[in-house]
Amino acid sequence: MEGTSRIESALAAALEQGSAQPKCPPKLAEAMHYAVFPGGARVRPRLCLAVAEACGSDAGRLAVAAASALELLHCASLVHDDMPCFDDAAFRRGKASLHRAMGEPLALLTGDALIVLAFEIIADGAAGAERSLAPLLLTVSRAVGGPAGLVAGQAWECEPRVVLADYHRAKTAALFVAATEAGAIASGADPVEWRALGERLGEAYQVADDLRDAAGDCEELGKPVGRDAALGRPSAATELGIARALGRMEALVDDAIAAIPDCRGAESLEELIHHESRRLVPKDLARLVA
Amino acid sequence: MEGTSRIESALAAALEQGSAQPKCPPKLAEAMHYAVFPGGARVRPRLCLAVAEACGSDAGRLAVAAASALELLHCASLVHDDMPCFDDAAFRRGKASLHRAMGEPLALLTGDALIVLAFEIIADGAAGAERSLAPLLLTVSRAVGGPAGLVAGQAWECEPRVVLADYHRAKTAALFVAATEAGAIASGADPVEWRALGERLGEAYQVADDLRDAAGDCEELGKPVGRDAALGRPSAATELGIARALGRMEALVDDAIAAIPDCRGAESLEELIHHESRRLVPKDLARLVA
Repeated sequence: MEGTSRIESALAAALEQGSAQPKCPPKLAEAMHYAVFPGGARVRPRLCLAVAEACGSDAGRLAVAAASALELLHCASLVHDDMPCFDDAAFRRGKASLHRAMGEPLALLTGDALIVLAFEIIADGAAGAERSLAPLLLTVSRAVGGPAGLVAGQAWECEPRVVLADYHRAKTAALFVAATEAGAIASGADPVEWRALGERLGEAYQVADDLRDAAGDCEELGKPVGRDAALGRPSAATELGIARALGRMEALVDDAIAAIPDCRGAESLEELIHHESRRLVPKDLARLVA
Repeated sequence: MEGTSRIESALAAALEQGSAQPKCPPKLAEAMHYAVFPGGARVRPRLCLAVAEACGSDAGRLAVAAASALELLHCASLVHDDMPCFDDAAFRRGKASLHRAMGEPLALLTGDALIVLAFEIIADGAAGAERSLAPLLLTVSRAVGGPAGLVAGQAWECEPRVVLADYHRAKTAALFVAATEAGAIASGADPVEWRALGERLGEAYQVADDLRDAAGDCEELGKPVGRDAALGRPSAATELGIARALGRMEALVDDAIAAIPDCRGAESLEELIHHESRRLVPKDLARLVA
């Protein structure tokens, strides 16, 4: 998928701006870098850039800023989610989780600093595109905060009763919706048309994540498996069973593709989604899909 | 001081927008409210509004949004700072700290949600003032994040060597500088002229905070005292001794007043600063000042 190198450079530049200065406490700078590099698949920022390009933009400065911001927010949520008071995860992306590597205080602060940096780089990328800034910020902030963004999704884990669809919509789909909408806004297109694509992809990704947690391989994933069952968290794999969850995921990918609006880049976007959806299925289950 | 009721209403409206909706996980909504109400002295947002008014604005929508955002960011930092992995404070503003009242996971998420909400309400308040939005966001985000904002200030506590001035500048003064600069930006004035006032007030406030921690009364403060010494944190009271720290604070207040730029509201701003600085000194020390 295209866009990866641009995203990596933009993330590196953002961190340098935000932390790699003499003034920054050295451990905070190190921890922020540790939380962002090396990255995972960078799915959300790549989706954001792909939509911006499909809408006709050459993925200008604001699109790259929005894409990087979404990844920083995602990384922040992983750091906080891994902390002892939450999932207590010992590793992430194939290495020790941040709090295990550098301690809880720095993990807490690093998540906070990454959230703030995300908004800073959006503002910084808006020169010449001032009219897009407020809609873009509202899209991103609502995807991350309350009442129905990523943080709200995590907060559903503190409630005695949870509707699986609400939980997934907030915890995972919201950031995918932000990725498609932000890509559209940064290209001057109508974000409303791009909402459904983000929703379907986000749902598909969450089901895939549940499947990988239930049936995946720890080494393949770079993080512990079986956490949903161990923590009693809602999971499509537990609720539907592996086979039906797999079918659900495939149906959502088809729905996502059907939801791509008419645009010059529709075909390459469709190809990208197919490619990504194959990558998401744990290897042991891939035989069932083939 | 003026502005308080406007700030309280704006904060209530912001929380309602961000969390008091049926979609929001009820405990997260409750925790966000708990973290923001009842408030402390609301010093930073009142300063922001006072500067906006002194610059000639009638404290319009963007100034109120910026002021509220600064308070939400301050509240978020208190919640995270109180957590067991950091200060492990049992109470705050005269009641149980949030993690003691509602648990660590919700405290972690509430801080995150308040940070995000701060940026959301700034974006929301920018209608009709699009050109001020990016500078305002940059001012606020840099005051809170790395390399030299509030979070960086907290991160200095994780370093083996700290220069007291750098630490205080980041941990406390940064948000005061943001308050004066944001007030100016929201009124269309030049923020550079208002920087020195924020710096001096921030330093004065930090020295006062150290004094209150060292010599204040637990009941008067609504939070534990003697924490700096107990946690081995840098403190002006420890470094200079009570009497010299008190003198330092008074000199900073005088410097702050001298730094007020020429403007129609200079006189009332001066009055406000005198009033606030008297309030900041612990009652037991007030005799020494008089």
